Amino acid sequence: MKLYKLLMIAAAVVSAAACCPKKAAEKSAIDVIMSRKSVRSYTQEAIPAEKVEILLKAAMAAPTAMNVQPWRFVVVTDQAVKDQLAGPRGGMIANAPLVVVVCGEATFMRKPWGQPDAEPVEAENPFWFEDCAAATENLLVAAEAIGLGAVWTACYPMPDRMEPTIAALGLPDNVKPFAVIPVGYPAGDDQPKDKWKPENVHYDKW
Amino acid sequence: MKLYKLLMIAAAVVSAAACCPKKAAEKSAIDVIMSRKSVRSYTQEAIPAEKVEILLKAAMAAPTAMNVQPWRFVVVTDQAVKDQLAGPRGGMIANAPLVVVVCGEATFMRKPWGQPDAEPVEAENPFWFEDCAAATENLLVAAEAIGLGAVWTACYPMPDRMEPTIAALGLPDNVKPFAVIPVGYPAGDDQPKDKWKPENVHYDKW
Repeated sequence: MKLYKLLMIAAAVVSAAACCPKKAAEKSAIDVIMSRKSVRSYTQEAIPAEKVEILLKAAMAAPTAMNVQPWRFVVVTDQAVKDQLAGPRGGMIANAPLVVVVCGEATFMRKPWGQPDAEPVEAENPFWFEDCAAATENLLVAAEAIGLGAVWTACYPMPDRMEPTIAALGLPDNVKPFAVIPVGYPAGDDQPKDKWKPENVHYDKW
Repeated sequence: MKLYKLLMIAAAVVSAAACCPKKAAEKSAIDVIMSRKSVRSYTQEAIPAEKVEILLKAAMAAPTAMNVQPWRFVVVTDQAVKDQLAGPRGGMIANAPLVVVVCGEATFMRKPWGQPDAEPVEAENPFWFEDCAAATENLLVAAEAIGLGAVWTACYPMPDRMEPTIAALGLPDNVKPFAVIPVGYPAGDDQPKDKWKPENVHYDKW
Protein backbone atom coordinates (compact mmCIF):
# COMPACT_ATOMS: atom_id res chain seq x y z
CA MET A 1 0.00 0.00 0.00
CA LYS A 2 2.87 2.36 0.83
CA LEU A 3 4.51 1.39 -2.50
CA TYR A 4 1.22 1.97 -4.35
CA LYS A 5 1.01 5.49 -2.88
CA LEU A 6 4.61 6.24 -3.87
CA LEU A 7 3.88 5.13 -7.43
CA MET A 8 0.85 7.45 -7.59
CA ILE A 9 2.94 10.36 -6.35
CA ALA A 10 5.61 9.62 -8.95
CA ALA A 11 2.88 9.43 -11.58
CA ALA A 12 1.45 12.81 -10.60
CA VAL A 13 4.87 14.49 -10.51
CA VAL A 14 5.96 13.11 -13.87
CA SER A 15 2.69 13.80 -15.62
CA ALA A 16 2.72 17.42 -14.38
CA ALA A 17 6.34 17.97 -15.32
CA ALA A 18 6.30 16.19 -18.67
CA CYS A 19 2.89 17.07 -20.00
CA CYS A 20 1.02 20.13 -18.84
CA PRO A 21 3.56 22.88 -19.59
CA LYS A 22 3.91 21.63 -23.19
CA LYS A 23 0.15 21.56 -23.64
CA ALA A 24 -0.16 25.12 -22.37
CA ALA A 25 2.60 26.27 -24.70
CA GLU A 26 1.21 24.44 -27.72
CA LYS A 27 -2.33 25.62 -28.28
CA SER A 28 -3.72 23.81 -31.31
CA ALA A 29 -3.57 25.58 -34.69
CA ILE A 30 -7.39 25.70 -34.85
CA ASP A 31 -7.54 27.35 -31.40
CA VAL A 32 -4.92 29.89 -32.49
CA ILE A 33 -6.80 30.72 -35.72
CA MET A 34 -10.05 31.16 -33.76
CA SER A 35 -8.42 33.30 -31.07
CA ARG A 36 -6.46 35.60 -33.41
CA LYS A 37 -7.74 39.13 -33.00
CA SER A 38 -6.79 42.65 -34.09
CA VAL A 39 -4.52 44.06 -31.36
CA ARG A 40 -4.01 47.84 -31.55
CA SER A 41 -2.21 48.68 -28.30
CA TYR A 42 1.16 47.28 -27.30
CA THR A 43 3.68 47.41 -24.47
CA GLN A 44 7.03 49.03 -25.25
CA GLU A 45 8.86 45.69 -24.82
CA ALA A 46 11.04 45.02 -27.89
CA ILE A 47 10.32 41.88 -29.95
CA PRO A 48 13.29 39.47 -29.83
CA ALA A 49 14.96 38.70 -33.18
CA GLU A 50 13.97 35.00 -32.90
CA LYS A 51 10.29 35.96 -32.77
CA VAL A 52 10.64 38.35 -35.73
CA GLU A 53 12.19 35.48 -37.70
CA ILE A 54 9.28 33.17 -36.80
CA LEU A 55 6.84 35.79 -38.14
CA LEU A 56 8.77 36.19 -41.41
CA LYS A 57 9.22 32.45 -41.93
CA ALA A 58 5.50 31.90 -41.38
CA ALA A 59 4.73 34.67 -43.89
CA MET A 60 7.04 33.15 -46.53
CA ALA A 61 5.43 29.73 -45.99
CA ALA A 62 2.23 31.04 -47.61
CA PRO A 63 1.02 29.67 -50.95
CA THR A 64 2.13 31.64 -54.01
CA ALA A 65 0.74 31.52 -57.55
CA MET A 66 3.22 30.02 -60.04
CA ASN A 67 5.71 29.89 -57.11
CA VAL A 68 6.72 33.49 -57.92
CA GLN A 69 7.05 34.44 -54.20
CA PRO A 70 6.47 38.15 -54.99
CA TRP A 71 6.36 39.14 -51.28
CA ARG A 72 8.96 41.47 -49.83
CA PHE A 73 9.09 42.60 -46.20
CA VAL A 74 10.36 45.78 -44.58
CA VAL A 75 10.92 45.32 -40.84
CA VAL A 76 10.77 48.71 -39.16
CA THR A 77 11.93 49.58 -35.65
CA ASP A 78 13.36 53.06 -36.38
CA GLN A 79 11.04 55.60 -34.70
CA ALA A 80 11.40 58.21 -37.45
CA VAL A 81 10.31 55.67 -40.09
CA LYS A 82 7.43 54.44 -37.89
CA ASP A 83 6.25 58.04 -37.49
CA GLN A 84 6.36 58.54 -41.27
CA LEU A 85 4.41 55.30 -41.85
CA ALA A 86 1.83 56.21 -39.23
CA GLY A 87 0.70 59.41 -40.94
CA PRO A 88 -2.95 60.22 -40.25
CA ARG A 89 -3.69 56.63 -39.17
CA GLY A 90 -1.35 57.49 -36.39
CA GLY A 91 -0.99 56.02 -33.00
CA MET A 92 -0.86 52.27 -33.22
CA ILE A 93 1.82 52.30 -35.93
CA ALA A 94 3.95 55.02 -34.30
CA ASN A 95 3.73 53.33 -30.88
CA ALA A 96 4.29 49.68 -31.87
CA PRO A 97 7.77 48.34 -31.03
CA LEU A 98 7.81 46.58 -34.41
CA VAL A 99 6.14 47.35 -37.75
CA VAL A 100 6.26 44.89 -40.65
CA VAL A 101 5.36 46.34 -44.04
CA VAL A 102 4.31 43.60 -46.44
CA CYS A 103 5.11 44.60 -50.02
CA GLY A 104 4.91 42.81 -53.34
CA GLU A 105 6.62 42.88 -56.72
CA ALA A 106 3.81 43.60 -59.19
CA THR A 107 5.79 42.24 -62.16
CA PHE A 108 7.93 39.17 -62.76
CA MET A 109 10.12 37.75 -65.50
CA ARG A 110 8.60 34.90 -67.46
CA LYS A 111 8.90 33.24 -70.84
CA PRO A 112 5.99 34.10 -73.17
CA TRP A 113 3.29 31.42 -72.88
CA GLY A 114 4.00 28.44 -75.12
CA GLN A 115 7.51 29.62 -76.02
CA PRO A 116 9.85 27.53 -73.83
CA ASP A 117 12.90 28.62 -75.83
CA ALA A 118 12.17 32.36 -75.77
CA GLU A 119 13.94 34.85 -73.51
CA PRO A 120 12.01 35.74 -70.32
CA VAL A 121 10.17 39.06 -70.50
CA GLU A 122 8.81 41.30 -67.73
CA ALA A 123 5.10 40.58 -67.19
CA GLU A 124 2.38 41.72 -64.79
CA ASN A 125 1.77 39.29 -61.93
CA PRO A 126 -2.03 39.33 -61.54
CA PHE A 127 -1.77 37.44 -58.23
CA TRP A 128 0.93 39.40 -56.37
CA PHE A 129 -1.55 40.94 -53.90
CA GLU A 130 -3.24 37.59 -53.20
CA ASP A 131 0.13 36.05 -52.31
CA CYS A 132 0.84 39.07 -50.08
CA ALA A 133 -2.55 38.67 -48.37
CA ALA A 134 -1.86 34.99 -47.64
CA ALA A 135 1.59 35.90 -46.25
CA THR A 136 0.01 38.65 -44.13
CA GLU A 137 -2.57 36.27 -42.65
CA ASN A 138 0.12 33.66 -41.89
CA LEU A 139 2.10 36.38 -40.10
CA LEU A 140 -0.95 37.41 -38.02
CA VAL A 141 -1.77 33.82 -37.03
CA ALA A 142 1.90 33.20 -36.16
CA ALA A 143 1.93 36.35 -33.98
CA GLU A 144 -1.08 35.04 -32.04
CA ALA A 145 0.66 31.67 -31.68
CA ILE A 146 3.76 33.16 -30.03
CA GLY A 147 1.99 35.59 -27.71
CA LEU A 148 2.22 38.72 -29.83
CA GLY A 149 -0.57 41.05 -30.97
CA ALA A 150 -0.84 42.66 -34.40
CA VAL A 151 -3.33 44.20 -36.78
CA TRP A 152 -3.66 44.32 -40.58
CA THR A 153 -3.81 47.92 -41.81
CA ALA A 154 -4.33 47.96 -45.56
CA CYS A 155 -2.37 50.03 -48.08
CA TYR A 156 -3.25 48.40 -51.42
CA PRO A 157 -5.29 49.34 -53.41
CA MET A 158 -5.69 52.84 -51.88
CA PRO A 159 -3.32 55.40 -53.50
CA ASP A 160 -3.63 57.74 -50.50
CA ARG A 161 -2.22 54.99 -48.28
CA MET A 162 0.30 53.55 -50.74
CA GLU A 163 2.02 56.80 -51.70
CA PRO A 164 3.19 57.87 -48.21
CA THR A 165 4.35 54.29 -47.53
CA ILE A 166 6.35 54.20 -50.77
CA ALA A 167 7.93 57.54 -49.77
CA ALA A 168 8.67 56.49 -46.19
CA LEU A 169 10.44 53.27 -47.27
CA GLY A 170 11.90 54.38 -50.61
CA LEU A 171 10.31 51.46 -52.48
CA PRO A 172 11.39 50.83 -56.10
CA ASP A 173 8.82 51.36 -58.89
CA ASN A 174 7.66 47.75 -59.24
CA VAL A 175 7.37 47.09 -55.48
CA LYS A 176 3.93 47.98 -54.09
CA PRO A 177 3.13 48.35 -50.38
CA PHE A 178 0.35 45.90 -49.53
CA ALA A 179 -0.21 46.20 -45.77
CA VAL A 180 1.36 47.82 -42.71
CA ILE A 181 1.34 45.56 -39.65
CA PRO A 182 2.16 46.98 -36.20
CA VAL A 183 3.28 44.21 -33.83
CA GLY A 184 3.89 44.09 -30.09
CA TYR A 185 3.01 42.42 -26.82
CA PRO A 186 -0.68 43.18 -26.18
CA ALA A 187 -1.18 46.01 -23.67
CA GLY A 188 -4.96 45.71 -23.50
CA ASP A 189 -7.46 42.89 -23.41
CA ASP A 190 -8.52 42.66 -27.07
CA GLN A 191 -10.83 39.71 -27.73
CA PRO A 192 -11.60 37.88 -31.00
CA LYS A 193 -14.92 38.70 -32.71
CA ASP A 194 -17.37 35.87 -33.34
CA LYS A 195 -17.92 36.13 -37.12
CA TRP A 196 -19.39 32.65 -37.64
CA LYS A 197 -22.49 33.03 -39.85
CA PRO A 198 -23.92 29.80 -41.30
CA GLU A 199 -26.04 31.97 -43.63
CA ASN A 200 -22.82 32.87 -45.48
CA VAL A 201 -22.54 29.25 -46.64
CA HIS A 202 -24.34 27.87 -49.71
CA TYR A 203 -24.38 24.25 -50.87
CA ASP A 204 -23.64 23.13 -54.46
CA LYS A 205 -25.29 26.21 -55.97
CA TRP A 206 -25.89 29.77 -54.78
CA MET B 1 16.89 0.19 -5.27
CA LYS B 2 13.93 -1.99 -6.31
CA LEU B 3 11.57 0.82 -5.27
CA TYR B 4 13.63 3.33 -7.31
CA LYS B 5 13.29 1.16 -10.42
CA LEU B 6 9.53 0.81 -9.90
CA LEU B 7 9.19 4.58 -9.64
CA MET B 8 11.13 5.01 -12.89
CA ILE B 9 8.84 2.52 -14.64
CA ALA B 10 5.77 4.32 -13.33
CA ALA B 11 7.25 7.60 -14.52
CA ALA B 12 7.85 6.26 -18.02
CA VAL B 13 4.39 4.72 -18.29
CA VAL B 14 2.57 7.83 -17.09
CA SER B 15 4.58 10.22 -19.19
CA ALA B 16 3.96 8.12 -22.32
CA ALA B 17 0.25 7.71 -21.61
CA ALA B 18 -0.50 11.27 -20.50
CA CYS B 19 1.74 13.27 -22.77
CA CYS B 20 2.77 11.90 -26.12
CA PRO B 21 -0.60 11.19 -27.73
CA LYS B 22 -1.80 14.74 -26.96
CA LYS B 23 1.40 16.20 -28.37
CA ALA B 24 0.99 14.21 -31.58
CA ALA B 25 -2.61 15.35 -31.92
CA GLU B 26 -1.82 18.99 -31.22
CA LYS B 27 0.96 20.07 -33.52
CA SER B 28 1.76 23.69 -32.75
CA ALA B 29 0.25 26.40 -34.96
CA ILE B 30 3.72 27.40 -36.18
CA ASP B 31 4.47 23.80 -37.19
CA VAL B 32 1.13 23.60 -39.02
CA ILE B 33 1.77 26.86 -40.90
CA MET B 34 5.26 25.65 -41.89
CA SER B 35 4.02 22.22 -42.99
CA ARG B 36 0.99 23.43 -45.01
CA LYS B 37 1.49 22.47 -48.64
CA SER B 38 -0.51 22.43 -51.87
CA VAL B 39 -2.17 19.00 -52.09
CA ARG B 40 -3.56 18.16 -55.53
CA SER B 41 -4.51 14.46 -55.26
CA TYR B 42 -7.04 13.09 -52.81
CA THR B 43 -8.59 9.83 -51.70
CA GLN B 44 -12.31 9.41 -52.41
CA GLU B 45 -13.12 9.38 -48.68
CA ALA B 46 -15.88 11.92 -47.95
CA ILE B 47 -15.08 14.79 -45.54
CA PRO B 48 -17.25 14.58 -42.40
CA ALA B 49 -19.58 17.54 -41.77
CA GLU B 50 -17.74 18.42 -38.54
CA LYS B 51 -14.50 18.91 -40.47
CA VAL B 52 -16.22 21.02 -43.12
CA GLU B 53 -17.57 23.23 -40.33
CA ILE B 54 -14.08 23.62 -38.82
CA LEU B 55 -12.79 24.79 -42.22
CA LEU B 56 -15.61 27.32 -42.61
CA LYS B 57 -15.32 28.62 -39.03
CA ALA B 58 -11.56 29.09 -39.49
CA ALA B 59 -12.20 30.96 -42.76
CA MET B 60 -14.75 33.30 -41.11
CA ALA B 61 -12.32 33.99 -38.25
CA ALA B 62 -10.11 35.93 -40.69
CA PRO B 63 -9.63 39.67 -40.32
CA THR B 64 -11.99 41.82 -42.39
CA ALA B 65 -11.67 45.52 -43.28
CA MET B 66 -14.34 47.67 -41.59
CA ASN B 67 -15.79 44.37 -40.25
CA VAL B 68 -17.79 44.03 -43.50
CA GLN B 69 -17.26 40.20 -43.64
CA PRO B 70 -17.78 40.17 -47.45
CA TRP B 71 -16.86 36.49 -47.79
CA ARG B 72 -19.40 33.94 -48.99
CA PHE B 73 -18.75 30.21 -49.39
CA VAL B 74 -20.19 27.64 -51.74
CA VAL B 75 -19.55 24.09 -50.50
CA VAL B 76 -19.70 21.73 -53.46
CA THR B 77 -19.98 17.93 -53.34
CA ASP B 78 -22.31 17.46 -56.33
CA GLN B 79 -20.26 15.80 -59.10
CA ALA B 80 -21.98 17.68 -61.93
CA VAL B 81 -21.14 21.02 -60.30
CA LYS B 82 -17.56 19.92 -59.58
CA ASP B 83 -17.17 18.94 -63.25
CA GLN B 84 -18.46 22.36 -64.34
CA LEU B 85 -16.07 24.11 -61.93
CA ALA B 86 -13.11 22.03 -63.07
CA GLY B 87 -13.29 23.11 -66.71
CA PRO B 88 -9.86 23.15 -68.37
CA ARG B 89 -8.05 23.13 -65.00
CA GLY B 90 -9.64 19.76 -64.71
CA GLY B 91 -8.65 16.85 -62.62
CA MET B 92 -7.98 17.93 -59.08
CA ILE B 93 -11.26 19.86 -58.83
CA ALA B 94 -13.41 17.19 -60.51
CA ASN B 95 -11.84 14.42 -58.39
CA ALA B 96 -11.82 16.10 -54.96
CA PRO B 97 -14.51 14.83 -52.55
CA LEU B 98 -15.10 18.45 -51.47
CA VAL B 99 -14.68 21.78 -53.25
CA VAL B 100 -15.06 25.08 -51.39
CA VAL B 101 -15.52 28.14 -53.59
CA VAL B 102 -14.60 31.31 -51.72
CA CYS B 103 -16.61 34.25 -53.06
CA GLY B 104 -16.95 37.86 -52.00
CA GLU B 105 -19.51 40.64 -52.18
CA ALA B 106 -17.79 43.44 -54.08
CA THR B 107 -20.15 46.11 -52.74
CA PHE B 108 -21.62 46.92 -49.33
CA MET B 109 -24.11 49.35 -47.85
CA ARG B 110 -22.60 52.25 -45.91
CA LYS B 111 -23.44 55.76 -44.84
CA PRO B 112 -21.60 58.40 -46.91
CA TRP B 113 -18.36 59.39 -45.09
CA GLY B 114 -18.99 62.07 -42.50
CA GLN B 115 -22.79 61.85 -42.76
CA PRO B 116 -23.84 59.75 -39.74
CA ASP B 117 -27.51 60.66 -40.22
CA ALA B 118 -27.69 59.88 -43.96
CA GLU B 119 -29.27 56.73 -45.39
CA PRO B 120 -26.77 53.95 -46.24
CA VAL B 121 -25.89 53.74 -49.93
CA GLU B 122 -24.34 50.90 -51.94
CA ALA B 123 -20.57 51.41 -52.24
CA GLU B 124 -17.62 49.50 -53.68
CA ASN B 125 -15.67 47.54 -51.07
CA PRO B 126 -12.03 48.05 -52.12
CA PHE B 127 -10.90 45.33 -49.69
CA TRP B 128 -13.32 42.47 -50.45
CA PHE B 129 -10.66 40.33 -52.18
CA GLU B 130 -8.12 40.87 -49.38
CA ASP B 131 -10.63 39.62 -46.82
CA CYS B 132 -11.36 36.63 -49.08
CA ALA B 133 -7.62 35.90 -49.38
CA ALA B 134 -7.22 35.94 -45.58
CA ALA B 135 -10.24 33.62 -45.22
CA THR B 136 -8.79 31.31 -47.89
CA GLU B 137 -5.42 31.09 -46.12
CA ASN B 138 -7.10 30.38 -42.77
CA LEU B 139 -9.06 27.58 -44.46
CA LEU B 140 -5.87 26.08 -45.94
CA VAL B 141 -4.00 26.19 -42.62
CA ALA B 142 -7.02 24.68 -40.83
CA ALA B 143 -7.14 21.87 -43.43
CA GLU B 144 -3.50 21.04 -42.71
CA ALA B 145 -4.23 21.12 -38.98
CA ILE B 146 -6.99 18.50 -39.23
CA GLY B 147 -5.22 16.12 -41.61
CA LEU B 148 -6.77 17.32 -44.88
CA GLY B 149 -5.04 18.45 -48.05
CA ALA B 150 -6.14 21.36 -50.23
CA VAL B 151 -4.86 23.80 -52.82
CA TRP B 152 -5.67 27.44 -53.67
CA THR B 153 -6.71 27.76 -57.32
CA ALA B 154 -7.31 31.40 -58.15
CA CYS B 155 -10.33 32.84 -59.96
CA TYR B 156 -10.10 36.56 -59.28
CA PRO B 157 -8.96 38.68 -61.09
CA MET B 158 -8.97 36.48 -64.24
CA PRO B 159 -12.23 36.85 -66.24
CA ASP B 160 -11.62 33.52 -68.04
CA ARG B 161 -11.65 31.77 -64.64
CA MET B 162 -14.37 33.86 -62.99
CA GLU B 163 -17.01 33.59 -65.73
CA PRO B 164 -17.34 29.77 -65.79
CA THR B 165 -17.39 29.74 -61.99
CA ILE B 166 -20.17 32.35 -61.89
CA ALA B 167 -22.12 30.25 -64.42
CA ALA B 168 -21.55 26.95 -62.58
CA LEU B 169 -22.76 28.33 -59.24
CA GLY B 170 -25.33 30.88 -60.44
CA LEU B 171 -23.71 33.72 -58.48
CA PRO B 172 -25.60 37.03 -58.19
CA ASP B 173 -24.14 40.13 -59.91
CA ASN B 174 -22.33 41.60 -56.89
CA VAL B 175 -20.83 38.28 -55.72
CA LYS B 176 -17.44 37.54 -57.29
CA PRO B 177 -15.72 34.15 -57.23
CA PHE B 178 -12.31 34.58 -55.57
CA ALA B 179 -10.79 31.09 -55.35
CA VAL B 180 -11.75 27.45 -55.91
CA ILE B 181 -10.34 25.11 -53.25
CA PRO B 182 -10.44 21.33 -53.76
CA VAL B 183 -10.17 19.50 -50.43
CA GLY B 184 -9.64 15.86 -49.50
CA TYR B 185 -7.51 13.38 -47.60
CA PRO B 186 -4.07 13.46 -49.27
CA ALA B 187 -3.53 10.52 -51.65
CA GLY B 188 0.11 11.28 -52.41
CA ASP B 189 3.12 12.47 -50.45
CA ASP B 190 3.11 16.22 -51.15
CA GLN B 191 5.76 18.07 -49.15
CA PRO B 192 5.95 21.76 -48.21
CA LYS B 193 8.36 23.94 -50.21
CA ASP B 194 11.11 25.80 -48.36
CA LYS B 195 10.47 29.42 -49.41
CA TRP B 196 12.49 31.09 -46.64
CA LYS B 197 14.65 33.80 -48.27
CA PRO B 198 16.31 36.27 -45.88
CA GLU B 199 17.11 38.43 -48.92
CA ASN B 200 13.39 39.22 -49.18
CA VAL B 201 13.62 41.12 -45.89
CA HIS B 202 14.75 44.76 -45.62
CA TYR B 203 15.29 46.74 -42.42
CA ASP B 204 13.84 50.21 -41.78
CA LYS B 205 14.23 51.28 -45.42
CA TRP B 206 14.33 49.45 -48.74
